[in-house]
Amino acid sequence: MTDPLRLGIAGLGTVGTGVVRIVRQKANLLARRTGRAIEISAVSARSRTKDRGVSLSGYAWEDDPVALATRDDIDVFVELMGGSEGPARAATEAALDAGKDVVTANKALLALHGQELAERAEAMGHVIRFEAAVAGGIPVVKALTEGLAGNEISRVMGVMNGTCNYILTRMEETGQGYNALFEECAQLGYLEADPNLDVGGIDAGHKLALLAAIAFGTRVSFGAVELEGIQQISLDDIHHAADLGFRIKLLGVAQMTGRGLEQRMSPCLVPADSPLGQLQGGTNMVVLEGDSVGQIVLRGPGAGSGPTASAVMSDVIEIARGTRLTTFGQPAAGLIHPTPARATAPAPYYLRLRLSDKPGALAKVAAVLGEAGISIDRMRQTRHDEITAPVLVVTHKTSRDALDRALEAFPATGVVVDEPIAIRIESI
Amino acid sequence: MTDPLRLGIAGLGTVGTGVVRIVRQKANLLARRTGRAIEISAVSARSRTKDRGVSLSGYAWEDDPVALATRDDIDVFVELMGGSEGPARAATEAALDAGKDVVTANKALLALHGQELAERAEAMGHVIRFEAAVAGGIPVVKALTEGLAGNEISRVMGVMNGTCNYILTRMEETGQGYNALFEECAQLGYLEADPNLDVGGIDAGHKLALLAAIAFGTRVSFGAVELEGIQQISLDDIHHAADLGFRIKLLGVAQMTGRGLEQRMSPCLVPADSPLGQLQGGTNMVVLEGDSVGQIVLRGPGAGSGPTASAVMSDVIEIARGTRLTTFGQPAAGLIHPTPARATAPAPYYLRLRLSDKPGALAKVAAVLGEAGISIDRMRQTRHDEITAPVLVVTHKTSRDALDRALEAFPATGVVVDEPIAIRIESI
Repeated sequence: MTDPLRLGIAGLGTVGTGVVRIVRQKANLLARRTGRAIEISAVSARSRTKDRGVSLSGYAWEDDPVALATRDDIDVFVELMGGSEGPARAATEAALDAGKDVVTANKALLALHGQELAERAEAMGHVIRFEAAVAGGIPVVKALTEGLAGNEISRVMGVMNGTCNYILTRMEETGQGYNALFEECAQLGYLEADPNLDVGGIDAGHKLALLAAIAFGTRVSFGAVELEGIQQISLDDIHHAADLGFRIKLLGVAQMTGRGLEQRMSPCLVPADSPLGQLQGGTNMVVLEGDSVGQIVLRGPGAGSGPTASAVMSDVIEIARGTRLTTFGQPAAGLIHPTPARATAPAPYYLRLRLSDKPGALAKVAAVLGEAGISIDRMRQTRHDEITAPVLVVTHKTSRDALDRALEAFPATGVVVDEPIAIRIESI
Repeated sequence: MTDPLRLGIAGLGTVGTGVVRIVRQKANLLARRTGRAIEISAVSARSRTKDRGVSLSGYAWEDDPVALATRDDIDVFVELMGGSEGPARAATEAALDAGKDVVTANKALLALHGQELAERAEAMGHVIRFEAAVAGGIPVVKALTEGLAGNEISRVMGVMNGTCNYILTRMEETGQGYNALFEECAQLGYLEADPNLDVGGIDAGHKLALLAAIAFGTRVSFGAVELEGIQQISLDDIHHAADLGFRIKLLGVAQMTGRGLEQRMSPCLVPADSPLGQLQGGTNMVVLEGDSVGQIVLRGPGAGSGPTASAVMSDVIEIARGTRLTTFGQPAAGLIHPTPARATAPAPYYLRLRLSDKPGALAKVAAVLGEAGISIDRMRQTRHDEITAPVLVVTHKTSRDALDRALEAFPATGVVVDEPIAIRIESI
């Protein structure tokens, strides 16, 4: 047995306490699996007195995470505070400068500063591992970095925000609208402090950007992710999609094309009987496609104390075993600047428009689509009130440019009320 | 950059040529991801002259895999010959004795001799890695050894023989019987040289035993796997199962209980709309359950040149990166001897019996079940010929002992023709 591996844990929320629990309760198992003891030397959190249901006896306490990160008696700084700036960033930088390895669940920090942090760590021979930052308990960072490392990755897809998937699933199940379910999530504590991180697709976009960096050997470029949240999705859309054999998911897709790196996180229609379509509630799913392996699908809990702590511990165990991997699967200094490319591959689209109930309105919409070169697979006008009529269109495969031309032309018809909704139909 | 990692590859079938192709075509990618060049020094196979569609120029040739395994110019012996004895075993042992690391796709070798080989390797500081031996391209060995290493694993389940799943899927799709599809598989080259390895569940049983060793920290005990193949499954069973909302899968389950280690590989009914139920053709699925993470599901191609070569390369890359893991996730010398336990947890069962068409026959069957303490959920007699009548029973949850009592009592009724079929219904 070598010396114990000593952890300093900053952040004792649901994930932090989960990690403490595993370290306390599984000492023998961890020692057998790593060949050394794993210990907690010190912890830090906002409130020292809060009852977290887990004993902190024997651990030094630091009010300041930076002080924690630089203590002589820790080998690994475990950052579970969250936030791309402020204490999380300061403490992570301080830990690296003080010669510590870092394990983090902080997707925002890495999505925005991962390149700089990885270079800093690697220049000094330290490691940053972040399994818990993407898709909770699913070991997808390791699957991509290690399991599929012999592949040229062609595409990474995933449903990676449990809260959005919960809202969309419950809309269909309960017939409640988006706003009611948003409120329910707020009350259940499912939402980030800034809810837009969840429902705006930002949190999921962070995760996608991290996976894309590993998959394609590119610098993390969260800024280039085309982001669209689920706030526009109505109960009508959910029901119409179901009638057509689809479900709506907040789906991330990253792929390298001849034009550059496409990254998008947006609502999509997926076949209801596909693995993605069947994903319920807070469960996450990631689809990895490589030239040798074909398609691998990983499914599991995307959040929660146990699953996320499991992911944190997998990184701690990796370090305890002496495995020292680069942050993004190859040296950060060699990651290329990706050319951002708009996701333009032709796809069928679902369109919902609200037309003023005038003679010829439908014909005008059809004419706009025809002029844009978009051919219609199915079109129907549904129940309408006295003033407007909802119209649904499912197009045949169409280019993004053609779709945009049509969307721009609709207002000039004078019959389209409100902003039309266009949702890509993803065939998986 | 450190020195190149030099491979010696024994076996140039579909997997071996896949590995050669990746090493030749992805030199830059592999070097970026590992920090060193990966090269092939020498190869060995049965026929030197066979055209394999891939260039072997620049590689030394050995007729004898043992000679290959001990060459001075290789660091890693890549064993892709297969077979638990003979050249594969001899060459693997020779490689370890000569100071080489070993990467193997050989589940039979490890299922039967894994303990001895792992101890031998670890005593000398060498590694044996076997990602390709289980579930083809799915990185499940790494998921269990690394990704879920912070968990007490409670259960491992999986559909891990593509040929069996292909036969069962095609029976439902085409209405062809088992024998016809067995012949089709033989002609398509989907069967092992000894087909019983596939259809008898042995190959899948090997894989299950390997996962169980990692999951539970126990010595590989393939001999204790309760094995049942798919040869008894009739088209009737497939159709009846479908009518009841189920599909039949050759399912492996390993779990640690208070009584010991349960391992079984047998046909089961699973809900048709569950992820396992929806698994088509040669695709594999592994379900891993841990106390912290909950349930993780991995799906992907279970065989084939590209997927299996992808798994082999993940091990090669791991070694090239300097990661040195124990074979089964903890030192082999410390793995415990598991107490084999029969899988006795109560479950509902599907029973198919053929009764002689006499008055009172059905009553006699019902009486046997009642006396065994088995309560009936559904029972029906289906279309019958002039002499016998097929009867289907779905039981409520019943213990394995009760089921066995009933199966033993049926012959004495004088009305049960043929051996009854009993298939466990697995709720997943």
